[in-house]
Amino acid sequence: MSKEIPYKIYLEENEMPKAWYNLRADMKKKPAPLLNPGTHQPMTAEELSVVFCDELVKQELDNDTKFYEIPEEIRNFYKMYRPAPLVRAYCLEKKLGTPAHIYYKFEGNNTSGSHKLNSAIAQAYYAKKQGLKGVTTETGAGQWGTALSMACSYFDLDCKVFMVKVSYEQKPFRREVMRTYGASVTPSPSETTNVGKKILAEHPGTTGSLGCAISEAVEVAVGTPGYRYVLGSVLNQVLLHQSVIGLETKAALDKYGIKADIVIGCAGGGSNLGGLIAPFMGEKLRGEADYQIIAVEPASCPSLTRGVYAYDFCDTGMVCPLAKMYTLGSDFIPAPNHAGGLRYHGMSSILSELYDQGLMEARSVKQTDVFEAAEMFARVEGILPAPESSHAIRVAIDEALKCKETGEEKNIVFGLTGTGYFDMVAYEKFHDGKMDDYIPTDAELEKFRARLPKVD
Amino acid sequence: MSKEIPYKIYLEENEMPKAWYNLRADMKKKPAPLLNPGTHQPMTAEELSVVFCDELVKQELDNDTKFYEIPEEIRNFYKMYRPAPLVRAYCLEKKLGTPAHIYYKFEGNNTSGSHKLNSAIAQAYYAKKQGLKGVTTETGAGQWGTALSMACSYFDLDCKVFMVKVSYEQKPFRREVMRTYGASVTPSPSETTNVGKKILAEHPGTTGSLGCAISEAVEVAVGTPGYRYVLGSVLNQVLLHQSVIGLETKAALDKYGIKADIVIGCAGGGSNLGGLIAPFMGEKLRGEADYQIIAVEPASCPSLTRGVYAYDFCDTGMVCPLAKMYTLGSDFIPAPNHAGGLRYHGMSSILSELYDQGLMEARSVKQTDVFEAAEMFARVEGILPAPESSHAIRVAIDEALKCKETGEEKNIVFGLTGTGYFDMVAYEKFHDGKMDDYIPTDAELEKFRARLPKVD
Repeated sequence: MSKEIPYKIYLEENEMPKAWYNLRADMKKKPAPLLNPGTHQPMTAEELSVVFCDELVKQELDNDTKFYEIPEEIRNFYKMYRPAPLVRAYCLEKKLGTPAHIYYKFEGNNTSGSHKLNSAIAQAYYAKKQGLKGVTTETGAGQWGTALSMACSYFDLDCKVFMVKVSYEQKPFRREVMRTYGASVTPSPSETTNVGKKILAEHPGTTGSLGCAISEAVEVAVGTPGYRYVLGSVLNQVLLHQSVIGLETKAALDKYGIKADIVIGCAGGGSNLGGLIAPFMGEKLRGEADYQIIAVEPASCPSLTRGVYAYDFCDTGMVCPLAKMYTLGSDFIPAPNHAGGLRYHGMSSILSELYDQGLMEARSVKQTDVFEAAEMFARVEGILPAPESSHAIRVAIDEALKCKETGEEKNIVFGLTGTGYFDMVAYEKFHDGKMDDYIPTDAELEKFRARLPKVD
Repeated sequence: MSKEIPYKIYLEENEMPKAWYNLRADMKKKPAPLLNPGTHQPMTAEELSVVFCDELVKQELDNDTKFYEIPEEIRNFYKMYRPAPLVRAYCLEKKLGTPAHIYYKFEGNNTSGSHKLNSAIAQAYYAKKQGLKGVTTETGAGQWGTALSMACSYFDLDCKVFMVKVSYEQKPFRREVMRTYGASVTPSPSETTNVGKKILAEHPGTTGSLGCAISEAVEVAVGTPGYRYVLGSVLNQVLLHQSVIGLETKAALDKYGIKADIVIGCAGGGSNLGGLIAPFMGEKLRGEADYQIIAVEPASCPSLTRGVYAYDFCDTGMVCPLAKMYTLGSDFIPAPNHAGGLRYHGMSSILSELYDQGLMEARSVKQTDVFEAAEMFARVEGILPAPESSHAIRVAIDEALKCKETGEEKNIVFGLTGTGYFDMVAYEKFHDGKMDDYIPTDAELEKFRARLPKVD
């Protein structure tokens, strides 16, 4: 406690985590298993291995092993852009005039611009190790696709990316970055797959969704010898890899004797949030410490705050297994005006289960409020945040302002998942007053819910 | 030497430089003074203070004070994005199969995407301290303009940016980032200034140059009460502030007992190169150590390798003082196909003098060779480099390949000044095979030279 806290806390390379932490091992009630969409029986390793690499199937199904050693090749790649700094937001605190201490874990210091690289490199590694030729995937805002392109380039794997059409159009340069790393990028829905053709026929002019893009990527993976599908969020394996965020954060806080009071993360499919909170939630589950944990989602895609906890399809094309999760329905597509990522209709099964058990809170925030927070943050902290990350900034600011009211010196930790350099169309809309705060009505949500699969 | 060298060497916050180093103090033969364009007499502090802040005028003219303490406010701002890592390019070395050890100082981990912020914050600080309302400037590739916008936003100063038209058009999102930080951005040449109108009349359809944009920014600064002009390169004061790059680099090398053999930097106006090499050149000037120092410039704008060492105008409009420098002539404008920055017709007087004394080398490299190096680097080191920085990468790779031939284990250090996230139009051109390697002919260069001012 006596040490002066620097603006940026960097761990030493030898203090970086050597193993990922599997939060499921500490959950008494485990997340519900994936189900076969035909039989409604739990998916077997054999069934999953048609879609995923063998090692990743093992990680996906393993609710018991607490730590997975990070292979040396992956640790070496991590060293190129990690440890990520834990930043004390001195300037933001001053601007807000809050007695709270604000910290953020900044995951944007790499070319993919986000935390997504943490899992991308792991998934590419296992694909390579299995002797595959390549992988397919979807990308929403483009961060995951970029991350995977980088990872595949590093291990010399082919990479086919289906990019949600609205993002593909809003972010022309994202495609070019992926191309620099040798990936092919197709706007989704596309005419290159059966499921894409079907979706286009049913919803002409659709701007796409993660759910559509997943269906297309899975179809191509399953139909192409030597290929598997990889996913950047939602899955248990992804949260496992992303635990590196939380482990580093916790280690940096511990090094300076700081006890977090509130941990805040943005939540789309749950990759960042699940990774960030893992060691904190672990302590909470084991009764060692308590933390207020807050998931922040867009009001335009409110799976936790307005969804239902039920089995649902992971994709629009209904080709994937069923997952039990907080969901808006697999047909749900956020309004085209919604900027950035966090567009997924569901939420990681792990996080859904923790939320259902009351172990974390969820808040939904409006777009313009998010961009106001983003701009304030950019001006005082010098980092132009991604729209996704700015959801967490919004709530961190709100909590810090509450502390100003009450005089509490809380330690607020949030995940700054990435930078907004490829989101300038959204910033422009905001500056020009052309961003609206459309929120789906109850009737609209009800319509999507009516199509949930019936699982006993 | 016994310490294992990590992928990234981060100094501790308390190891960061507390003073800038003024290389001129160690030069026996000082750089030539700025001259009044009318009288051809050395510019006085009084004359310069019409254009620049008082403290910056002092720094500009001071050839003697060896160290300038960095004010605490600036050091605090530095702490938001510095120390910058010195990275051991293990993956690039492996890819090249070279026995050389390659290190790069990475200055791109901030929203301006480059080293330019180091001087921007200093210049904004002194402007604020003098009670000014705002500043004007020019920007080429957009990095300096972004950096200055960030710095002005931090100190609540107005910021008017004239952006070289070709960059303004190639980089639409740069403007939006500057706007996020509250700056106004005008494509140059523009109809908003007399000099802009004149240039447009003489060269209709011109894509602009740094020299034009400088003239416009100076005109507005001089004509608007409470404003001064600031510049992101070329000037002595800028090299002074940028010495923080070299000082950190040297400190990081010293910490691990590494002696650099070759120091490489890209050179446009000289801000990065001058800052990076400062402490190395200082040792060389004082006879304490020897280093091979290499400036790398684009073959399309080859001021050191094909320019003349003479007094010239700093700007196209000929409103600025005369500087003695390696120059292509103030009318010189690189071919529109030339991507990125490094477009200035001249070179820092300090660097010009050192080059003239044979204390450093210069090489010019072709665009497509630069982008080949950039893409290779991006794929193995995981950072998508700015086109500017990639000039240094090109020569670092060339030198490392020479070591492969000779078996020498040289320590090669280069400056990775920034990231290329806003340069995807150029990358696209490269991928599509639409980038050419146009190099000005001798006759063309002769034409521009003929218009140099006559100074006795």
